Amino acid sequence: MHGFWNPENIALKVLAPGVTAKIASGEKMMFSLVTLAPDAVVPTHSHPHEQMGLMVSGTMMFTIEGETRVLSGNEMYFVPGGVSHAAKGGPGGAVALDAFSPPREEYR
Amino acid sequence: MHGFWNPENIALKVLAPGVTAKIASGEKMMFSLVTLAPDAVVPTHSHPHEQMGLMVSGTMMFTIEGETRVLSGNEMYFVPGGVSHAAKGGPGGAVALDAFSPPREEYR
Repeated sequence: MHGFWNPENIALKVLAPGVTAKIASGEKMMFSLVTLAPDAVVPTHSHPHEQMGLMVSGTMMFTIEGETRVLSGNEMYFVPGGVSHAAKGGPGGAVALDAFSPPREEYR
Repeated sequence: MHGFWNPENIALKVLAPGVTAKIASGEKMMFSLVTLAPDAVVPTHSHPHEQMGLMVSGTMMFTIEGETRVLSGNEMYFVPGGVSHAAKGGPGGAVALDAFSPPREEYR
């Protein structure tokens, strides 16, 4: 069945100190609308799920396989499954959309 | 291999009159950053690929299986594979991110 979600009606999930997400899931994909407080850190980690992301607002340092970029505007990124990555909110914080395939069962 | 994309460096793809997209693809997912001019229409269609979307700015009328919502803010939507859907830009137009799984080969 199809779905519509207003983020205002989705419970916040705390991913790390200063990092929260609102989750919406399809069948093959899951969306995670992530808010990072200024300087908040998502430590280096990996998961078997493929991840693609879109900057929604603010700036964020994003590191994939040791390559770090400062992302802003509507920049996008791709993290293949199993590849290490990390993030840090910029001085004004950030909002980014992360998409996972398959959905991350631990986020449901 | 991982990837970073700045939309300013991605060629515009015309999807319909007044509807353009910038495409970035992973392996299991493809992102399509879509801009709809005011009142521009994506006619009703379907594809076997699962689709999830996020409003980035503006407003858009989005119809899935005959259910129409006016989307704004960072509202999200899910279109299962094979399900008919359509879109129309609001009076100020819209930007939305569409994610597809698997990637749509005709968009590469």
